[in-house]
Amino acid sequence: MTTDPVALTQNLVRCPSVTPEEGGALVLLEEMLSAAGFSCTRVDRGGVPNLFARWGRKGAPSFGFNGHTDVVPVGDAAAWTHDPFGGEIAEGWLYGRGATDMKSGVAAFAAAAVDFVIETPPDGAVILAITGDEEGPSRDGTRALLDWMDAEGERMDVCLVGEPTCPEEMGDMMKIGRRGSMNAWFTFRGQQGHAAYPHRAKNPLPAMARLMADLAETELDRGTAHFDPSTLAVVTMDTGNQATNVIPAEARATVNIRFNDSHSGATLTAWLRREAARVSEATGIEIGMEVKISGESFLTPPGPLSELVAEAVAAETGRRPVLSTSGGTSDARFVKSHCPVVEFGLVGHRMHAVDERVRVEQIGQLKAIYARILRGWFAAEENS
Amino acid sequence: MTTDPVALTQNLVRCPSVTPEEGGALVLLEEMLSAAGFSCTRVDRGGVPNLFARWGRKGAPSFGFNGHTDVVPVGDAAAWTHDPFGGEIAEGWLYGRGATDMKSGVAAFAAAAVDFVIETPPDGAVILAITGDEEGPSRDGTRALLDWMDAEGERMDVCLVGEPTCPEEMGDMMKIGRRGSMNAWFTFRGQQGHAAYPHRAKNPLPAMARLMADLAETELDRGTAHFDPSTLAVVTMDTGNQATNVIPAEARATVNIRFNDSHSGATLTAWLRREAARVSEATGIEIGMEVKISGESFLTPPGPLSELVAEAVAAETGRRPVLSTSGGTSDARFVKSHCPVVEFGLVGHRMHAVDERVRVEQIGQLKAIYARILRGWFAAEENS
Repeated sequence: MTTDPVALTQNLVRCPSVTPEEGGALVLLEEMLSAAGFSCTRVDRGGVPNLFARWGRKGAPSFGFNGHTDVVPVGDAAAWTHDPFGGEIAEGWLYGRGATDMKSGVAAFAAAAVDFVIETPPDGAVILAITGDEEGPSRDGTRALLDWMDAEGERMDVCLVGEPTCPEEMGDMMKIGRRGSMNAWFTFRGQQGHAAYPHRAKNPLPAMARLMADLAETELDRGTAHFDPSTLAVVTMDTGNQATNVIPAEARATVNIRFNDSHSGATLTAWLRREAARVSEATGIEIGMEVKISGESFLTPPGPLSELVAEAVAAETGRRPVLSTSGGTSDARFVKSHCPVVEFGLVGHRMHAVDERVRVEQIGQLKAIYARILRGWFAAEENS
Repeated sequence: MTTDPVALTQNLVRCPSVTPEEGGALVLLEEMLSAAGFSCTRVDRGGVPNLFARWGRKGAPSFGFNGHTDVVPVGDAAAWTHDPFGGEIAEGWLYGRGATDMKSGVAAFAAAAVDFVIETPPDGAVILAITGDEEGPSRDGTRALLDWMDAEGERMDVCLVGEPTCPEEMGDMMKIGRRGSMNAWFTFRGQQGHAAYPHRAKNPLPAMARLMADLAETELDRGTAHFDPSTLAVVTMDTGNQATNVIPAEARATVNIRFNDSHSGATLTAWLRREAARVSEATGIEIGMEVKISGESFLTPPGPLSELVAEAVAAETGRRPVLSTSGGTSDARFVKSHCPVVEFGLVGHRMHAVDERVRVEQIGQLKAIYARILRGWFAAEENS
């Protein structure tokens, strides 16, 4: 028996699982995995549907897979050339919301796993931790699965996240870590007044301009062994003042920082606080700051796991993937606290955009890569 | 006969002349001035009511007065302790919208002028140019009066503007000029993108922060013989961006400049343009700029006119007024192109605020000062 990952991707795309709707996607996977002998548990939390599936006994050496079935909204439906929930195939492309991000990745792994445990049952466990909220707040998605696994004594020894990772060609990149991400919201409080008498007011805007200019012009670092340089983007600056003869009392700004392993959320928060205090002292403007750290940077140093994945990719595509830590965040930022984690998936054609689509032959290629990884990992386990 | 300036102020306050409503105020003045032998003409333009009144023959040596009867809106009516259009007197204060800005000034001058031409008719002309729009757009107010006077061959040799000028005590300050005022609106255009990939976007915010910080921190000058230092206030900075993971494509900022006689609107515009070009070149962000010059700075150098006013003030109050050019703009910025102009008026208690009010005895004092100025000016004319 061979499970067809293309038909499975089509069936998953036909489930309208816009975050946090389950849309039938996890039910479909649960039925298929249960039929193949997986023990399945729905781990829903806070209105978010999640699926935990394990083949093999609890506590055995286990290879884990993490992914998501939820998708972002369709956007301008009229601009799509194919039904975003149709799963239609045209000229070698499979169209639909989630076609690359990441129903094809889930389908390729599920198909590889089912075939693997039926054809060559390993002496160990294969775990799938699939969430219905990676695109939304991500509070009750993969985190809920990991919390539940901790409580139940369920454990993955390693984990592969199936997000799209290839920028141009199938196989050109895998991820062995991710930069951290944080936002800081600044409030600048002065004293309102007439623009003709600036000495009687306390204008918060020069303080905001000074701090934002200084932050934007600071070189955070020059990159590290496995990471690009950290970046800081000023993303908002606002006053909402309507009158040009009035100096406003308050202004607000936001920065987003993507940081590598030479920083942490705490060291950057301390730096921002020092910079704000310096500008506050120089200007007499009260500066408030709130920080949210979405994820710390993390790295699974190059080693057996990344080598296993890179070799499987090279064998199937003829291309050895670059080991990268670039890009935005993924649920790997949660998994990394549980076990070593790497990421490999498709080329992300038009992720989140109109006419999201995937090359049909690459879905089969991805399944073959995942199958090689499963065979290779359990073979190494048995030899160790 | 003695005209009571307090009763006249009360009657004017009872006219609800919120810009551009005439509210009965100019009609009341026209009746009173006509009865005293003034020839009156309504010079309405663009929906704005204006009154020109001349006693004496056209072309004779003439002393002019400029003021306005329009008032700003009441604001929070419930917060007033007296009817804003009641003209009520309590504990020595006359309450009402326009009580200081500037129906009492108009009343004091009209009363002084009427008594003067009746009691000691001069060999010359007394002109009142009263507008119904100084608080609004000011397009068809005093400018319309001056345009009409130019067309009709009507001329003031000197002009006194009766706006409140005293910051603390009756008589402590007169104005012999005003700073210029201008606004510049900046638009910063970059390219939208994801905050995780700032190198693929062009963030307009660091350019805005840099330019606004540099402008705000520039010392425009250190003041001149008769002027305070020029000031630049950054009054708005906005992006309207909702998403912290998105670098916005555009941002906007506004600055307001109050400038003395070491600058002009044109030299400041050229400076702003150079600064914007410098930041644009350094950042690669396209910077657009629009400028509106509300008024150039002007000065009536200290001389016979300011001396006449200062002596009259000193005689009635015992206080010699400081000759100042501080503060916002007034219609003197239009009159200065017509003839030498100075400004003297009351202490501006709660101008534009709730419970605007004037000390009753100061209205009489102001009438006495204006009467002295009229007598002094025509006496000097006869002796010259």
